[in-house]
Amino acid sequence: MRTHTDSVGVVIPQTVRFDSSISLASGVCLPGFELVYETYGALNDDASNAVLVCHALSGNHHAAGFHAPTDGVAGWWDNMIGPGKPIDTNQFFVVSSNNLGGCHGSTGPSSINSSTGQPYGSSFPLVTVEDWVRTQTMLADHLGIKCFAAVIGGSLGGMQALAWSYLFPHRIRHALVIAAASKLTAQNIGFNDVARQAILSDPDFHGGDYYQFGVVPSRGLKLARMLGHITYLSDDVMGARFGRLLQNGGINFGFGIEFEVESYLRYQGEKFSSSFDANTYLLMTRALDYFDPARLHDDDLSLALSEVRAKTLVVSFTSDWRFSPARSKEIVKALLDNGAQVSYAEIKADYGHDAFLLEGTYYHALIRNYMQRLMCQD
Amino acid sequence: MRTHTDSVGVVIPQTVRFDSSISLASGVCLPGFELVYETYGALNDDASNAVLVCHALSGNHHAAGFHAPTDGVAGWWDNMIGPGKPIDTNQFFVVSSNNLGGCHGSTGPSSINSSTGQPYGSSFPLVTVEDWVRTQTMLADHLGIKCFAAVIGGSLGGMQALAWSYLFPHRIRHALVIAAASKLTAQNIGFNDVARQAILSDPDFHGGDYYQFGVVPSRGLKLARMLGHITYLSDDVMGARFGRLLQNGGINFGFGIEFEVESYLRYQGEKFSSSFDANTYLLMTRALDYFDPARLHDDDLSLALSEVRAKTLVVSFTSDWRFSPARSKEIVKALLDNGAQVSYAEIKADYGHDAFLLEGTYYHALIRNYMQRLMCQD
Repeated sequence: MRTHTDSVGVVIPQTVRFDSSISLASGVCLPGFELVYETYGALNDDASNAVLVCHALSGNHHAAGFHAPTDGVAGWWDNMIGPGKPIDTNQFFVVSSNNLGGCHGSTGPSSINSSTGQPYGSSFPLVTVEDWVRTQTMLADHLGIKCFAAVIGGSLGGMQALAWSYLFPHRIRHALVIAAASKLTAQNIGFNDVARQAILSDPDFHGGDYYQFGVVPSRGLKLARMLGHITYLSDDVMGARFGRLLQNGGINFGFGIEFEVESYLRYQGEKFSSSFDANTYLLMTRALDYFDPARLHDDDLSLALSEVRAKTLVVSFTSDWRFSPARSKEIVKALLDNGAQVSYAEIKADYGHDAFLLEGTYYHALIRNYMQRLMCQD
Repeated sequence: MRTHTDSVGVVIPQTVRFDSSISLASGVCLPGFELVYETYGALNDDASNAVLVCHALSGNHHAAGFHAPTDGVAGWWDNMIGPGKPIDTNQFFVVSSNNLGGCHGSTGPSSINSSTGQPYGSSFPLVTVEDWVRTQTMLADHLGIKCFAAVIGGSLGGMQALAWSYLFPHRIRHALVIAAASKLTAQNIGFNDVARQAILSDPDFHGGDYYQFGVVPSRGLKLARMLGHITYLSDDVMGARFGRLLQNGGINFGFGIEFEVESYLRYQGEKFSSSFDANTYLLMTRALDYFDPARLHDDDLSLALSEVRAKTLVVSFTSDWRFSPARSKEIVKALLDNGAQVSYAEIKADYGHDAFLLEGTYYHALIRNYMQRLMCQD
């Protein structure tokens, strides 16, 4: 067992199977599915201290701690979740699940479809942010949680936190919507579509049924991740980290790696493409594209959020050009239009969109203070 | 013959062959090459009214007019060049060539290498902005032009105008450096590398020698162009043009075209990939990456520009996030450090980087006024 006093230590993922079918936003009915999840801390007697953490595009259920004492890398939000950390597991019971359609244990395109004995592949239905929230309520029921003290997420995870607040207003007391937006811009959708086209046009994609060919569309997924990475960072932080540094000191006049930034992006792309499922990447980017609670309310976000009862903390980062502060302010305005209780913080950060994953003095102090007051307020 | 009074009308491209070998920045010696070019207007007796227009990444020699009376589409800068237009062909003799390495008539990777009888393909050397400028001086010699009244370009074309001013200070009286930078940022290089990787990893690329296989890496080139397009436009203009408009009115839960912006980008990608050579695209993006006159001067741009004698107009566009106004100001500062005559205009424009290609009231008035005063000043 690891001895870090601020770590949740070694955690064992759990899996819950739901045998009842679920009707998805697409109209497709999924006859049962599994969710893999982790929990940190202890649920109190009246189940009032539960916090749901929602992951972003490439995340999973492993948000904190380690899977083995020898693990070198902790969960993706380990700097945020743990004993004494901003989301303090001495105080809260934290739940983190892999989204439906994922590739880390929850039922998804790479899972075996029991009715065929083959991976779902192209037959796996598209899911929406709202679908995810519905499956998360089923997990909450399973864990005996009627109402979350808070639902927290960054980026696509922030969209889930927001969706919780308008879909299940009586099951969430606080929403922490971080580095998110109520809908993607055309530019965002454009980037997503380039990423998808890279995967879809990879000859190893085989219409999504590559599993049975013993290949994966790794070229396409690598390109998608390289592109994504650029948009998660600010121009300034890329300049500070890489600038125009040359890999080998001089120019070689070729298409191999010349600049450090190329080395970094290609490495990130390679690593990701060997550990993530391309169909899940496609599905996740479409869920991002589709999310737009105002769409069915005459494009009026205030109307879409009129049922929200949760208190909301909206957080943005100054250098985030993928989900800019302006997008966060749209959420704040719509909540204020409804007289909802909302706090807004715009954190000065150089890092770009990925700042939500990093330890920042003011950022973590903000979340820590909000979470500490949260149990007293209610 | 077209009757537009402000058009240069039908133009016939010309080709010049240089049989003397040229030593490139890469160290490779190219034994002769051809440049295709167009001219508009008439050279005056003392050859003092010549203007060189340099093209950007996907451009070519066909900057103005039409190739046939039935042509529906004019040259790429037809709104700028013509009788009575900002670059007035009643006054100036305008020269526009396709860069060495191009795919529209000048010698490039898709040209036949006479020593093998096959397309150059992967054996075509990389060329730099400075190489292009040297070949352009050879074209000037051929045309009897000792000194250009102005060298003008946007984006990669602006880099060529800048390079003219420090490489051949006595052959250029004015440089118009529009929507350019003295070097790419890490983010720019990153985007270029994603585009290149899309092409290089396309199974139809065949190491650059796809011509002999009867295929072209169109999937990769399409992706490259889609990505490029997003970065040429501002987030705001994409929002205004496409927003979240759905192609078919509703969501279809699939990976086909859902949003208008996807339709636009895919169409642009398809069109480009059927008319441009992938090897040229690779070569052009590398020339962009490599351009950095300060590199051999201790990263001191002022030092790199110390020989500049030309008067310079630097123009940027407020919404250009690929070559932002801050990058243009670096050029202005370095020129001012040397006591050079430089004017700077930051044009308010919503369109993003591509604004340099469009007709803008203030933008065109600026260029028109600058060009009109230019002949009187000297």
